Amino acid sequence: MKELVLICIFVVSIFSLNSTVEARIRHYRWEVKYEFKSPDCYKKLVITINGRSPGPTILAQQGDTIVVDIKNSLVTENTAVHWHGIRQIGTPWSDGTEGVTQCPILPGDTFRYKFVVDRAGTYLYHAHYGMQREAGLYGSIRVALPAGEAEPFSYDYDRSIILNDWYHKSTYEQATGLSSIPFDWVKDPQSLLIQGRGRYNCSTPGIAANLCNGTNPECSPYVFTVVPGKTYRLRIGSLTALAALSFEIEGHNMTVVEADGHYVEPFVVNNLFIYSGETYSVLIIANQDPSRNYWAVTNMVSRNNTTPNGLAIFNYYPNHPTKSPPTIPPSGPYWNDVDARVNQSLAIKSHPGYIHPVPQTSDRVIILLNTQNKINGYFKWSINNVSFTLPHTPYLIALKQNLLHTFEQTAPPDIINGYESYDINVVPPNVNATTSNSLYRLKFNTTVDIILQNANTMTANNSETHPWHLHGHDFWVLGYGKGKFNRSEDPKSYNLVNPIMKNTVPVHLYGWTALRFVANNPGVWAFHCHIESHFYMGMGAVFEEGVEKVAKLPSSIMGCGDTKRFLKP
Amino acid sequence: MKELVLICIFVVSIFSLNSTVEARIRHYRWEVKYEFKSPDCYKKLVITINGRSPGPTILAQQGDTIVVDIKNSLVTENTAVHWHGIRQIGTPWSDGTEGVTQCPILPGDTFRYKFVVDRAGTYLYHAHYGMQREAGLYGSIRVALPAGEAEPFSYDYDRSIILNDWYHKSTYEQATGLSSIPFDWVKDPQSLLIQGRGRYNCSTPGIAANLCNGTNPECSPYVFTVVPGKTYRLRIGSLTALAALSFEIEGHNMTVVEADGHYVEPFVVNNLFIYSGETYSVLIIANQDPSRNYWAVTNMVSRNNTTPNGLAIFNYYPNHPTKSPPTIPPSGPYWNDVDARVNQSLAIKSHPGYIHPVPQTSDRVIILLNTQNKINGYFKWSINNVSFTLPHTPYLIALKQNLLHTFEQTAPPDIINGYESYDINVVPPNVNATTSNSLYRLKFNTTVDIILQNANTMTANNSETHPWHLHGHDFWVLGYGKGKFNRSEDPKSYNLVNPIMKNTVPVHLYGWTALRFVANNPGVWAFHCHIESHFYMGMGAVFEEGVEKVAKLPSSIMGCGDTKRFLKP
Repeated sequence: MKELVLICIFVVSIFSLNSTVEARIRHYRWEVKYEFKSPDCYKKLVITINGRSPGPTILAQQGDTIVVDIKNSLVTENTAVHWHGIRQIGTPWSDGTEGVTQCPILPGDTFRYKFVVDRAGTYLYHAHYGMQREAGLYGSIRVALPAGEAEPFSYDYDRSIILNDWYHKSTYEQATGLSSIPFDWVKDPQSLLIQGRGRYNCSTPGIAANLCNGTNPECSPYVFTVVPGKTYRLRIGSLTALAALSFEIEGHNMTVVEADGHYVEPFVVNNLFIYSGETYSVLIIANQDPSRNYWAVTNMVSRNNTTPNGLAIFNYYPNHPTKSPPTIPPSGPYWNDVDARVNQSLAIKSHPGYIHPVPQTSDRVIILLNTQNKINGYFKWSINNVSFTLPHTPYLIALKQNLLHTFEQTAPPDIINGYESYDINVVPPNVNATTSNSLYRLKFNTTVDIILQNANTMTANNSETHPWHLHGHDFWVLGYGKGKFNRSEDPKSYNLVNPIMKNTVPVHLYGWTALRFVANNPGVWAFHCHIESHFYMGMGAVFEEGVEKVAKLPSSIMGCGDTKRFLKP
Repeated sequence: MKELVLICIFVVSIFSLNSTVEARIRHYRWEVKYEFKSPDCYKKLVITINGRSPGPTILAQQGDTIVVDIKNSLVTENTAVHWHGIRQIGTPWSDGTEGVTQCPILPGDTFRYKFVVDRAGTYLYHAHYGMQREAGLYGSIRVALPAGEAEPFSYDYDRSIILNDWYHKSTYEQATGLSSIPFDWVKDPQSLLIQGRGRYNCSTPGIAANLCNGTNPECSPYVFTVVPGKTYRLRIGSLTALAALSFEIEGHNMTVVEADGHYVEPFVVNNLFIYSGETYSVLIIANQDPSRNYWAVTNMVSRNNTTPNGLAIFNYYPNHPTKSPPTIPPSGPYWNDVDARVNQSLAIKSHPGYIHPVPQTSDRVIILLNTQNKINGYFKWSINNVSFTLPHTPYLIALKQNLLHTFEQTAPPDIINGYESYDINVVPPNVNATTSNSLYRLKFNTTVDIILQNANTMTANNSETHPWHLHGHDFWVLGYGKGKFNRSEDPKSYNLVNPIMKNTVPVHLYGWTALRFVANNPGVWAFHCHIESHFYMGMGAVFEEGVEKVAKLPSSIMGCGDTKRFLKP
């Protein structure tokens, strides 16, 4: 019954989208606060939006203006919300990146985000402040095509889910542990969530009975109800704090049709690999034995782990939604099957009918060597041996209002000194890095190549997958390679014909990933590993382009750091 | 050896105080952040100042100017620090009360508090934002007399300790529980701390071994080392989140000589009752058998409880400081011996040589009925059935800058409607209250009486002790009474001869307490129950007086709420 109601709401929603000809303003009023929730049956503090985590899904149509008034009802804690995949053309102050585009939103304040969703597709939103994202402040954005336009594929119904990993320690405990000597890292997540629901084993020794209740309805599995014979578009986003994931639906293939808001040349998979910050649309046909339900499974890959797989129920109507499938859930791919993951990366190409032609040359190449480091004994992640820190006066304001003393003015390097001799396959002889909050200033309208170069961590024979996310832009994915990027040879293998455009892309173990984008969106944009603790520990960079073209900044983004000098009562 | 070093530091410190003739500026630079600490052997997140909790003791001389630069290194959380007992004459913006006198200090910001300590005595400082105080952000202020002036008592050495209660749940969990339906209150503290050290039983079932370590030096008992035959001034402050306490030193009487910065007519006690926000100085003569050590004990009173007593070691030099006393620690007074506590309250009178003459009449009488209530199903505490909430635009700024729309303008009542018929001995028939952020505006230089009237809570046959603290003032304590205050009769019993002046005073179970103060300190001042959860749940009020006489406000206190309108880049 609940599912039918949902389907009805859904149909009304689609109808209302398609019946609108002109762009609309869609106004949301959200209250952000802490509540006790049990997403995986274990009760802990969760940041909710209007009582929910994940928060409400933003449903809009291309060209609409989204207005979100966020009231911060956290008691002593600030917040900021990023609209992940939305380029914020003309509204860089609405990107929601604390320290980059705005001051944090204080408790009691209501901050208005206002921006245009200028391209249909599947996007996300989430906190972009400290490590609040993993406290539960996240959700989906679904942008439909304008009325009369059609996608290059067809389906009967449209659904969104977000995959996540889940920790029982608070974000404060986690962040403090990362900044401690000895380093105190939480390690594997306790569970994996599918659309905010997972299952921790409450019988685990040492778990207090009043904290974990396996019968709590908040942790009943997510149910994806389908009508036999129908085709479903499933929009899948990942906002894991750490985990690289695989997702599959028992007995059903999936046809990948969209990635980060761009149509891909369709390809069929049994399981989809997805990294934090990525979104995909897949088509699923409900063409299996309709007398039973099936498992939907997500499992952690790329890292040997102890995290149990996350489960949901793929429910064939009219079977009862909670009817357990008669089978053992698929166990998913092996965590260490790197080739399978690289192959999926390589398979993602632009749909032939929707190719955005890629500039055939670039004006600047920046090679970002990803390493794990130490600074004064603290564990860090670094780019070219510089561990990034956010300033407390947001760059956008500092640059527009000429507060250049608020961050370091020496630009970070386009390539690490000694790149040619750097051995990415071993623990570096000197793991010590430096720290900086300086940014890359890009010449407006130039074409920039970024080479993400992976390397060995501080542990022998270990390299980790890092999903990098660029704000304010989509980039063309020119290629992936194994080993160390060769500046003269590897560009010859770039895909300059039909590269996909994305906003998030993995750099695989010991490999490299090459991206290209045009610096044509006036503003200041973060580019960082989407693993929340990695960015917190310095794995990021910031790009400025055309900041002089940015319109007058709203004063609502100010009030912190050196912008307090603008307080003139 | 450590103790000797401390004594040496102390002697140098006293020397430096006495050698100074003119008022000095004492400059402190503090960094506030989260760290894992084990004050009672149980590891949890603690807010530290320069790595310590309690924070550094401020040592100053009457007339000195204190400058404290507080750098907020909490990751996503603001802060504010109150200088408890300092009247902030001429500097109301340095009172550190978020929502009343300042906007919170943002992460990354350094806020400067600057104020004069104009009266010798024993004071405190602590966070005054949300429920941060109980996360560990607190410490002592000790102000010495000017050179050449002497106290009306003598002693050889001077020491400060703070008593506290300690919870293992985070302040976020506690605050969220208080704002939840069903109400989720943490109940009794897990331990009592003496100068930041207590002892939780790590063998308690369900406590993970890696979280609790009874041999951690951080939870070794506080040691008070004495030289036989010497007299010690012990300054004792309480900053409990909840607990009313008794404190005693086995086998040693204590002579009470100071309360909240005022000299009292000395009286001798076996144990000292102390409420959150109070300070006392007691004299202790090390006149017992010097061949052994003794227990110092604090225990919880006023509430039936399960909290183990807090222990410290009163160490006779040269016994080893960790040598356990050969006796069983005293168990302290019975929790429910109300008379003993009222008797101590009645015993505290001004020292004859230091009487501040009390105005014999008052211009206004405000009766504050203390009740427990519900609002929309949420548990609250109220004054005259109004549960206080803090505005997000601090009153001081709102009033000076004419932002009167930021809080409710209808003044709270001077007496509850139906006061004469209100039965304080029973659960009220209607426990529902309303909420308001309005304040009392006092005519400048008038004399105001406050009658704190206690009552039955929402539980039959239950009334609780509330310690009320007034900012910006000392008040005369005119009297305490049992039962309901009689407006015509009870004032006849006021002590108008030698009442003590204090800044914090208890209202006992089912009783009343009468205070008088002169509204002669331009500013806006909080007056509230010092039980942190009670103030959080509405047990407070705010007084404005002479705000038009307040000098130009520093912009450093602005940046939140409606003060963002002053951002003019």
